[in-house]
Amino acid sequence: MVRCAEARCRTACRALRHAGSMGADESLERQIRFVLEADRLKTVARQSRITNGTRQENSAEHSWHLALMALALGGHAPASTDLGRVMAMLVVHDLVEIDAGDLFLYSDSAAQTRQEAAERAAADRIFALLPAPQAVAARALWDEFEERRTPEARFARALDRLQPMLLNMQTGGGTWVAHDVPLDQVLSKVELIEEGSAALGGYARAMIAEAVERGFLRAIAGPHAG
Amino acid sequence: MVRCAEARCRTACRALRHAGSMGADESLERQIRFVLEADRLKTVARQSRITNGTRQENSAEHSWHLALMALALGGHAPASTDLGRVMAMLVVHDLVEIDAGDLFLYSDSAAQTRQEAAERAAADRIFALLPAPQAVAARALWDEFEERRTPEARFARALDRLQPMLLNMQTGGGTWVAHDVPLDQVLSKVELIEEGSAALGGYARAMIAEAVERGFLRAIAGPHAG
Repeated sequence: MVRCAEARCRTACRALRHAGSMGADESLERQIRFVLEADRLKTVARQSRITNGTRQENSAEHSWHLALMALALGGHAPASTDLGRVMAMLVVHDLVEIDAGDLFLYSDSAAQTRQEAAERAAADRIFALLPAPQAVAARALWDEFEERRTPEARFARALDRLQPMLLNMQTGGGTWVAHDVPLDQVLSKVELIEEGSAALGGYARAMIAEAVERGFLRAIAGPHAG
Repeated sequence: MVRCAEARCRTACRALRHAGSMGADESLERQIRFVLEADRLKTVARQSRITNGTRQENSAEHSWHLALMALALGGHAPASTDLGRVMAMLVVHDLVEIDAGDLFLYSDSAAQTRQEAAERAAADRIFALLPAPQAVAARALWDEFEERRTPEARFARALDRLQPMLLNMQTGGGTWVAHDVPLDQVLSKVELIEEGSAALGGYARAMIAEAVERGFLRAIAGPHAG
């Protein structure tokens, strides 16, 4: 018997396939409308710059980069992690930014609370563009990512935290320097990486040490530290 | 017994996970180098414009859009198609453009032959950045997409052909108008869509008819038609 490690992914994929009882043409029309609406994510700018430093990254290409990281770094996820599900989650996780925009990772807690409400409203609107059962499946994937209760969600979140650190290291400290981000805040993000993957957490910790050495991060808490 | 429709995807994912016999640190270093090299795909411009018409699409965000389409439109693939594998293929399929650039879909056959050679050389270089067994698995995914011998590859290719048509319809005819592409050449791309998905092929055919009606494509063969 073949071992079905990806059973949950298959379930999710199957749910995402089913467009319900409306006519085939109407289903397809709604799916295409969703695909066209999603295109707007290409216009949402993030704080991080791409590795050549020429411009800010957008949320669509960021999502692609994370899906590629799931493939390249999947060996560092817990053994039975379903990478297909991780990829699916990463592909949809930022769609809410079409309405809510991208909030800088180190914004204050009031801004983060407002952002969470805006993102939930965006999820309500955007996933509902899909035919009903598919909309529920896609929304469930997004909720799973947000709630970080499964190994897949924790690994996906780890990649989402690691990637901007990699970009910062390639762009002279990037957002850390631009926003004078204190070390303790960066280390709190490393904990989220460790929750998803011990190996990637260790890698991030070593990278932060190098960032301090290169002057990208201040070793002692600065004026912004809480 | 759970039915394992995604068996091949699991095999591919497992192969992609295994980084071989080198030390864990060295494997991770190579994987990160691959991830950073991949970032350059964000700077490769395609001919198509994003739906708001403000700029050309880049190949990284295009790849994300296709992976999202695999999720949204997966119900129109043949029943046992492994969507996880389709997504993985779409995420890596354009990486070769980092070296080879993006060739316009309707370029002449001499340009296409040169492009194919450049893309193979790029695949040799880029996938080899990964630890050896993983490099082989990633290259096999790319070869599969290029060869179109599996339902997964044909569906992935269908999405890759459909997406720029959707963008053209949103941008006043887009590349069809800009390059005065003859109808018969567009219809030959529709055949590739039909090979991957009858429903999406039918959708594309109806869209082309509308494009002719709206004056985005000339109904009779123009001076460029072969």
